[in-house]
Amino acid sequence: MLSLIVKKFGGSSVADDDKLSNAARIIANSHVAGHQIVVVVSAQGDTTDDLLGKIASINPGASRRETDMLLACGEQMSASLLAMTVEKMGFPVISLTGWQAGMQTDSNHSVARIQKIDPERVRMELDKNNIVIIAGFQGINRFGDVTTIGRGGSDTTAVAFASALKADLCQIYTDVDGVYTADPRIVPEARKLKEISFDEMLELASLGAQVLASRSVEMAKRFRVKLEVLSSFLNQPGTIVKEVVKMENMQVSGVARDNNVARIALVGLADVPGVASNIFSLLARQKINVDIILQSIGRHNTKDISFTVTKSDLPEARSLIEEHKDSLAYETLVVSDHISKVSAVGAGMANNPGVAARMFTALARAGVNIQMISTSEIKVSVLIDLADSDRAVQVIHQEFFG
Amino acid sequence: MLSLIVKKFGGSSVADDDKLSNAARIIANSHVAGHQIVVVVSAQGDTTDDLLGKIASINPGASRRETDMLLACGEQMSASLLAMTVEKMGFPVISLTGWQAGMQTDSNHSVARIQKIDPERVRMELDKNNIVIIAGFQGINRFGDVTTIGRGGSDTTAVAFASALKADLCQIYTDVDGVYTADPRIVPEARKLKEISFDEMLELASLGAQVLASRSVEMAKRFRVKLEVLSSFLNQPGTIVKEVVKMENMQVSGVARDNNVARIALVGLADVPGVASNIFSLLARQKINVDIILQSIGRHNTKDISFTVTKSDLPEARSLIEEHKDSLAYETLVVSDHISKVSAVGAGMANNPGVAARMFTALARAGVNIQMISTSEIKVSVLIDLADSDRAVQVIHQEFFG
Repeated sequence: MLSLIVKKFGGSSVADDDKLSNAARIIANSHVAGHQIVVVVSAQGDTTDDLLGKIASINPGASRRETDMLLACGEQMSASLLAMTVEKMGFPVISLTGWQAGMQTDSNHSVARIQKIDPERVRMELDKNNIVIIAGFQGINRFGDVTTIGRGGSDTTAVAFASALKADLCQIYTDVDGVYTADPRIVPEARKLKEISFDEMLELASLGAQVLASRSVEMAKRFRVKLEVLSSFLNQPGTIVKEVVKMENMQVSGVARDNNVARIALVGLADVPGVASNIFSLLARQKINVDIILQSIGRHNTKDISFTVTKSDLPEARSLIEEHKDSLAYETLVVSDHISKVSAVGAGMANNPGVAARMFTALARAGVNIQMISTSEIKVSVLIDLADSDRAVQVIHQEFFG
Repeated sequence: MLSLIVKKFGGSSVADDDKLSNAARIIANSHVAGHQIVVVVSAQGDTTDDLLGKIASINPGASRRETDMLLACGEQMSASLLAMTVEKMGFPVISLTGWQAGMQTDSNHSVARIQKIDPERVRMELDKNNIVIIAGFQGINRFGDVTTIGRGGSDTTAVAFASALKADLCQIYTDVDGVYTADPRIVPEARKLKEISFDEMLELASLGAQVLASRSVEMAKRFRVKLEVLSSFLNQPGTIVKEVVKMENMQVSGVARDNNVARIALVGLADVPGVASNIFSLLARQKINVDIILQSIGRHNTKDISFTVTKSDLPEARSLIEEHKDSLAYETLVVSDHISKVSAVGAGMANNPGVAARMFTALARAGVNIQMISTSEIKVSVLIDLADSDRAVQVIHQEFFG
């Protein structure tokens, strides 16, 4: 059956002439098969980093408005270069910038949110039998200024167009060939999933699996866009991400880990109402995201509060808390960035209360000490010492998939 | 008196961080002096050539539409980088692409003609006291596609905005400090002109002086835009180009030469009407520009026609004429690309018929043989052997300025 397919190629999939040719071949094959093709591209290889380097050397405090103006060129260039590569193969094609393609965002430069897609131009080009190549990551605000939409922007652009165009499938081409039960570099026997649900993918994405930006998965879930994660270098099916997956009788569908974590503990807080509120309001005002939070009863009518932030937020969080030592009224501040968060994710978990216990037992058998625990309906996360990280992933994977 | 000034910086004037800083200082000084400043920039240094190199490697036959999409990034990047540099110095500034600035062109990609400038956005930014930096060389057609306007495009962009904004002055910053009576590399005693008329500048530009694109001078003349050519590296006045210049009692204002010339002679043509028409219609259909044309009476009721083309057009012109030998009916084709065109230009010439004679006499004294002569109201051009080129410029300059 003929259909409309959105294909997204990341920076590594269009990094040089050979890779552009490879992407063009994939696009051309789908076109020959009779599908309507919309492509979203990232900037080539290191282009974005090179442009950020220029800014660092010229004006590290450059406005976000001008930064967006510069960065958007990265995707515009790769879109036109990919279009030229497709032209060379003799296929009808046109490249469009974000604003030409109808990508409208708010005015939060560098982290703009998509407000609306007006797909008229894209539809017109598809009607002319053109392959349409859209520069990802960028849009336009209501003042006519170029915006960029932040990290994972090209994945999100692809999903947004798939939704606006009511595409049958949104394929995310990358350098891995799908979603695995664990990182194959840590667990060689990890196996590729045929399917995964949005919720599971979301947990995996936010837990450190780098396959898909979680923002794009959220959007795909909300607008029911069927996603496929697949390799641009292997000609084989990837992993389908969709609302409901066939029950594979699996309690756990994947094991993820995130080493970009730091733990902060405020020890000896007064055991009165409002303490937690003070701490987390303070952090929220500075846009510091807090992940796992744990409160325990301390000695002598006090309590302790521990929580995690990303490593990059640690210095700011730390100095913020130190500045407010008097008002927060804690005794000691304990900080660690030698930790890892390891998680088991699975939709089947909700009806199988034994999963957490099996995971803890497996870790205990391997001598891995658990520092903090956090659970949701479909995942169990533990905070452990960084040195135990690989082993923890391996024994949990062995427990559920071995 | 406060005024609105358009400043154009070429690729060499924004090639790296230091040069960006230098341009930003010039801009900031004018802003501090209370002027409203609109800046037009070219792409940095070799950027355009680098992008053309990418096209050559990916698809030498890339469409002009996609080529424009790619090339326009060069100016967009330099505009935002220059804006960041101005931001760093603490001045209010905004960069705009061609389409944001309201530059509307026809759809002849790569050689688009400017149709209209809608300066609303630029005026709005000026009203907010912003320095406005516009990416030169680019516009948008009525379909919303990015276009580029061809060689000399940034000069022409600057003049077009100066006209649309009714600017008081359009300053073209370059790596020379003005218009000289001759190329100082050939004639060390050449002197800088304070002023020159549009007509003289046009003749000089089309005769090989590389200071200003002749297209931009034509537009400045048509819309009465006062131009100044000046150095971005020396803090001193340049040369003013305007409608009427003060009479400096000069018959000749400059000597120019162009070595990018080839001569074609068709010898032994039938002396009947329509011969010249056949030849030049044939060349015109292939968009080959012909410069000097000379027709002379040959032997035995025949005539000869000689004309010049640019060196790059010579191969095509030659084979075109050879293909049509039968219909054109000439006896022999004589081609030379070892020639040089040397010209004396001056508005004062019109009322001084002795100028051509003085020029020919100076050349004769120096033993330079004249192959062809072409004159207009304000210039005299001679075609001579390439080997005599430098000497010819020197002796003509000596004759009029010595």
